[in-house]
Amino acid sequence: MDSPAIPVMRPRLPDADALLPYLRRIDQTRVYSNMGPLARQLADILGAHFHCPAHPLANATLGLAIALMAMGPPAGSLCMVPSWTFAASAHAIILAGMVPFLVDVDEASGMLVPEMAADFLPRAPGHVGAIMPVSAFGHPVDIAGWQDFRARHGLAVVVDAAAGFDTAQGGDLPVVISLHATKVLGAGEGAFILCRDTDLLHRCATTSNFGFSADRQASMAGMNAKLSEYHAAVALAAIERWPQDRGHIMALTRKLAETLPQTAGWRGEVTRAFAANTLNLEFPSGWQAAEARFAAAAIETRRWWGGGLHRHPAFRHCPHLPMPETDRRADLTLGLPFHGDLDGVALRRIADVARACLDDQP
Amino acid sequence: MDSPAIPVMRPRLPDADALLPYLRRIDQTRVYSNMGPLARQLADILGAHFHCPAHPLANATLGLAIALMAMGPPAGSLCMVPSWTFAASAHAIILAGMVPFLVDVDEASGMLVPEMAADFLPRAPGHVGAIMPVSAFGHPVDIAGWQDFRARHGLAVVVDAAAGFDTAQGGDLPVVISLHATKVLGAGEGAFILCRDTDLLHRCATTSNFGFSADRQASMAGMNAKLSEYHAAVALAAIERWPQDRGHIMALTRKLAETLPQTAGWRGEVTRAFAANTLNLEFPSGWQAAEARFAAAAIETRRWWGGGLHRHPAFRHCPHLPMPETDRRADLTLGLPFHGDLDGVALRRIADVARACLDDQP
Repeated sequence: MDSPAIPVMRPRLPDADALLPYLRRIDQTRVYSNMGPLARQLADILGAHFHCPAHPLANATLGLAIALMAMGPPAGSLCMVPSWTFAASAHAIILAGMVPFLVDVDEASGMLVPEMAADFLPRAPGHVGAIMPVSAFGHPVDIAGWQDFRARHGLAVVVDAAAGFDTAQGGDLPVVISLHATKVLGAGEGAFILCRDTDLLHRCATTSNFGFSADRQASMAGMNAKLSEYHAAVALAAIERWPQDRGHIMALTRKLAETLPQTAGWRGEVTRAFAANTLNLEFPSGWQAAEARFAAAAIETRRWWGGGLHRHPAFRHCPHLPMPETDRRADLTLGLPFHGDLDGVALRRIADVARACLDDQP
Repeated sequence: MDSPAIPVMRPRLPDADALLPYLRRIDQTRVYSNMGPLARQLADILGAHFHCPAHPLANATLGLAIALMAMGPPAGSLCMVPSWTFAASAHAIILAGMVPFLVDVDEASGMLVPEMAADFLPRAPGHVGAIMPVSAFGHPVDIAGWQDFRARHGLAVVVDAAAGFDTAQGGDLPVVISLHATKVLGAGEGAFILCRDTDLLHRCATTSNFGFSADRQASMAGMNAKLSEYHAAVALAAIERWPQDRGHIMALTRKLAETLPQTAGWRGEVTRAFAANTLNLEFPSGWQAAEARFAAAAIETRRWWGGGLHRHPAFRHCPHLPMPETDRRADLTLGLPFHGDLDGVALRRIADVARACLDDQP
């Protein structure tokens, strides 16, 4: 192949010049972490952007663990989570002292939805103390539905919206959004929790700072998951240019819709109306065959969620229900390149291989 | 009071100009986390500095949890830890799925020493799966002694040397050192693990990256505790100027020895031969009276370790043995200002109040 390789992911965070004004402020305050002025400014700006109080954190994995810990479900109880998610969801549940209870996702959305969770509850092999719905690759989560579910069942609900910066909504329950470098709005490492319940959000903040009450006494289980002033600086610089960045992502998304076939399985993904950081398509002949075709064309791909949680060695022992839809998605889904470096030539190369994959016999 | 307030802590990390060359490299690589080039360079430089393989991490609390998780002690077993430590030690033990077992410290060193731990083992109320010795405010830990202990008892040992950048030694067991802004060498947030057992260090690294094996399968429990390239940049810039910074800290330490009375209780602290980030003195009349005197003189103080773990509400339920020495230290110890902004005038103000405190009747 003479064509240059196309990486599956190629972030571009604010450069040194964009960071410099924030770094000069750090030099002046000489505050470097512990909810300093930049982290507080970030919380304010996120709060205004989402019309919901926000608290910044070191990363989303810790954010999910913290939200669970702050809601105080019984130690050792089960946390229902869709198997179709990133490994971090289950790791966070274990960090919070709970046991992941792996369940299937909805055929239409690829997500655990409240009605399914209600059906699964009586089939749990133990006491369910919490539920963690997951935004599938940034698709919007039914926050109102989960609030109803929580009110009806009295269970803790923490929403993993790691890739959901552009679709996240605040609610009475914690919604955790990642600011990792690979996300649409990246700070390198970082995350934040949205929550209208300000007492609960305050408990999350306390949990992220060693469970310290005002007198530096650990009043509850906790950890260090504070966002430093440096990462707050990167996040603030990234938010400054978010309108342009979002515009570029949506322009690229529109090109996908023009370039890729809109088969029944692909339409929802290539015509999505929100800014996402990945492109995950289902290949009827399976991800392996597609991966091989793309690799031969020097196009990098990735199974962002692998085979689902229940196929990771670390989570195989976790209680689970049958999950035909997760298995179907895991067997077919492959992540293609999707980032700002893709030009028309690269997009056409990707589309040509994708079209060829569709011609493969399942 | 007309005298300006003296803060207890006043970090000064590398400024924007010192960071700029590293930030330009980040702009070139467009790698922002996930053990990028700067984090790898930091690992190499730390390895050379300590003559021991090192792995950088997001912070020391997570580093301690990760080291425990990587050593795989039985879930739910006890981890023996001195009560005379910062809250993070116990939080890390709980994050790792273990139960803190709180014990006393040695009168001479203020630390849990191997002989004491051996004595405490048969008095544990359950199965002890690990031990976490703690460096008291940066004082050196007997690594050889703990290696012997580990060999003799077959127990996991993880050393909390959070404040021990200047005294830490590598060994066959994980030693966790903080790079928090308040430490002698600060990166804002950050930490690293030293360990000569490269298989174990690799397991720590894997644990810090979602337990992922090469194929992005979670092979073990894990989390995200990666050090970003931004914090690696701050750490690298801080290491560049470490010889000068250490020189300044040691010059300040020598001034302490000239300015403060070298009573029996204070001599060890004010004549210490290593760079520390705090100054913790025992006041025979108790910390409360001393705190009041310093506050009246506009001098900020802090009880860095409060009353010991067993007095934090979050850890009161943890199994513990009697701890007369911890209680004695907790009742008397107060942290005084100790940082690079202290000039001769400030030092004399601190010394005057400290001397007056000694005259108080216990």
